[in-house]
Amino acid sequence: MDIKSFIPPQRILMGPGPSDVSQRVLDALARPTIGHLDPAFVDMMDEMKQLLQYAFKTNNELTFPVSAPGSAGMETCFVNLLEAGDKVIVCQNGVFGGRMKENVERCGATPIMVEDEWGKAIDPDKVEQALKANPDARVLAFVHAETSTGVQSDAKTLTELAHKYDCLVIVDAVTSLGGTPLEVDAWDIDAIYSGTQKCLSAPPGLSPVSFNERAAEVIRNRNSKVQSWFLDLNLVMGYWGAGAKRAYHHTAPINNLYGLHESLLILQQEGLGNAWARHDLHHQALKAGLEAMGLSLLVNEVDRLPQLNAVVIPQGVDEVIVRMRLLQDFNLEIGAGLGSLAGKVWRIGLMGHACSVRNVEYCLQSLDQVLGDMGVIEKGVAVPAAQTILTSAA
Amino acid sequence: MDIKSFIPPQRILMGPGPSDVSQRVLDALARPTIGHLDPAFVDMMDEMKQLLQYAFKTNNELTFPVSAPGSAGMETCFVNLLEAGDKVIVCQNGVFGGRMKENVERCGATPIMVEDEWGKAIDPDKVEQALKANPDARVLAFVHAETSTGVQSDAKTLTELAHKYDCLVIVDAVTSLGGTPLEVDAWDIDAIYSGTQKCLSAPPGLSPVSFNERAAEVIRNRNSKVQSWFLDLNLVMGYWGAGAKRAYHHTAPINNLYGLHESLLILQQEGLGNAWARHDLHHQALKAGLEAMGLSLLVNEVDRLPQLNAVVIPQGVDEVIVRMRLLQDFNLEIGAGLGSLAGKVWRIGLMGHACSVRNVEYCLQSLDQVLGDMGVIEKGVAVPAAQTILTSAA
Repeated sequence: MDIKSFIPPQRILMGPGPSDVSQRVLDALARPTIGHLDPAFVDMMDEMKQLLQYAFKTNNELTFPVSAPGSAGMETCFVNLLEAGDKVIVCQNGVFGGRMKENVERCGATPIMVEDEWGKAIDPDKVEQALKANPDARVLAFVHAETSTGVQSDAKTLTELAHKYDCLVIVDAVTSLGGTPLEVDAWDIDAIYSGTQKCLSAPPGLSPVSFNERAAEVIRNRNSKVQSWFLDLNLVMGYWGAGAKRAYHHTAPINNLYGLHESLLILQQEGLGNAWARHDLHHQALKAGLEAMGLSLLVNEVDRLPQLNAVVIPQGVDEVIVRMRLLQDFNLEIGAGLGSLAGKVWRIGLMGHACSVRNVEYCLQSLDQVLGDMGVIEKGVAVPAAQTILTSAA
Repeated sequence: MDIKSFIPPQRILMGPGPSDVSQRVLDALARPTIGHLDPAFVDMMDEMKQLLQYAFKTNNELTFPVSAPGSAGMETCFVNLLEAGDKVIVCQNGVFGGRMKENVERCGATPIMVEDEWGKAIDPDKVEQALKANPDARVLAFVHAETSTGVQSDAKTLTELAHKYDCLVIVDAVTSLGGTPLEVDAWDIDAIYSGTQKCLSAPPGLSPVSFNERAAEVIRNRNSKVQSWFLDLNLVMGYWGAGAKRAYHHTAPINNLYGLHESLLILQQEGLGNAWARHDLHHQALKAGLEAMGLSLLVNEVDRLPQLNAVVIPQGVDEVIVRMRLLQDFNLEIGAGLGSLAGKVWRIGLMGHACSVRNVEYCLQSLDQVLGDMGVIEKGVAVPAAQTILTSAA
């Protein structure tokens, strides 16, 4: 065995996540490990809760990071709120709605699917029809920001509809948290999960979640035990609960939590509104550059996520070669299409720390060279077009 | 909100885990985040598998770190190997056997409990009786190294018994991996899970697991889907599988994996046999010091884990005050008792990077002062007693 210390290359991460992690957050990761029951750690957890409440715009007591990636945050919502035999309306307009369906089925519950085309927002009319047709449904589940397509759906309207028909909502905010408007309390969202490696720009491995009192009440009054011991919030609440003596549940991922704490602090210092505006501005600049060179975005303007840009691959282009050249020659990572969009789009992320003037220009320059060499775009016009947007905003 | 960057105190971690993390591992955590599908990351994962195979002494193809703490590694074993209605023999001689029972029940399976006193090893005779009495049992589950008591059970004999009665074994090696002899292939263990924050001295947040072909075959031929999407090895195998194209399952905890890679490399550079011997030697030294000052260990000599020392609390001592003084005045963390041993023992860990001459001496000196001030031990004799052992070994 001839293995050496792993020294990763320095990439620029403009795919669907992870996004670039700032030096401040990397430094935080490397601070000395302490115990998960250490009073100093417990104080940090209290701050973490406040910072997450700020990011989610909520006062929910039950707001904390699940000790595993976003998929586990999704599963936390489903296994805690569902029991076998329940009926759940699941909206699908991309990969992650499909994963929700898997979660529902594995809880022994029945998913009623409401499908929209990939690249389109969820249609509230179809959702209302499904709610009407299924008065025994208990939960409506949907993705706020579909990472697989770059589409944003109207979480406020969908939540209002669900409540009108006595359903709770489970909302996937993996890609929206910190990047685009999201108001858990104002929109009255019952259960929500996110990830750390998108617009928060912390390393992957944790999943911030929040549950309102209505959802917490359902969890406390279950008929059956939660099928996952690790994700059972009745147990986890004992550890993350406020004030009271913290009961040992599992060993928290200490250093990863240092990183998330720092990244949430960076968000709070910038201000949520400023972060949203920054994502929007740089998206406008990137879009102007892409369009100037002759590329187009998959999603209608009104439904676009600023932080995840699905770019239609020009005809005749071998998309793998483009991504490989960007990675090898420019150290730039952009994402491939997933599922039914594989081979049809690239996904360019502008998330968190990666959402900067420097990255917008670098990405456009790199694409200009690679696609220019292939003769499929107009060269030399992208960066000036982006700069026009950035200058007019300055 | 007046929150600042979190600067943890510099502790010496001699509790039941996390253990002290070396600067080499902390430095690895802070290296630049790259994508989970980056070719450089994929190469690192291949090395990780080799390093884990080395640590587990196995050639099992299905050897990788679950993207969550040890409790999730436990759950991975149970949810993948069990189906509803299965019967499982679970040995309990501490906290973690009880957690196994919870896991079995939450899979809709039936646990048959074989109980031994906390602080005693699992009795193979009782296990054989249970296997005989339950010919329809499919799995025997037990803890190799009980972190709650400091007891080691005979994993080789228990595995032989299980196979004699056509059962698979699930083995908890959270505290044994890297600290005490463990031979997955030689002992023919079917499924095993561990943690990173014990004798590997990486931060918590990952759970190394390994499954032999017999276990993998059971997983591939299940009648029902695994109840957890996140932990479903039929899906995870697509990502960690060797050679083949890696399918996206979930976003791996990149930086935590850098840390684990480095800590496994440190183990490989030291050599597994040397690491085991180091844990044994420093345990002997600690024990000599503790006994010299008049303290005693809970567990019989033959069943003791070197890396986790359960020390009987002297009568009349307020154990919380002792731990708080050690933490506040000496920055030294030792562990409290859990469950039925709460208030009866302290748990002093000598795990991985924390298992050193310096730590043995520091711990004994600190206890000497704190307990000496209380007048419950003989002062000034502990460190010399430990040094005698260390010198004679040198």
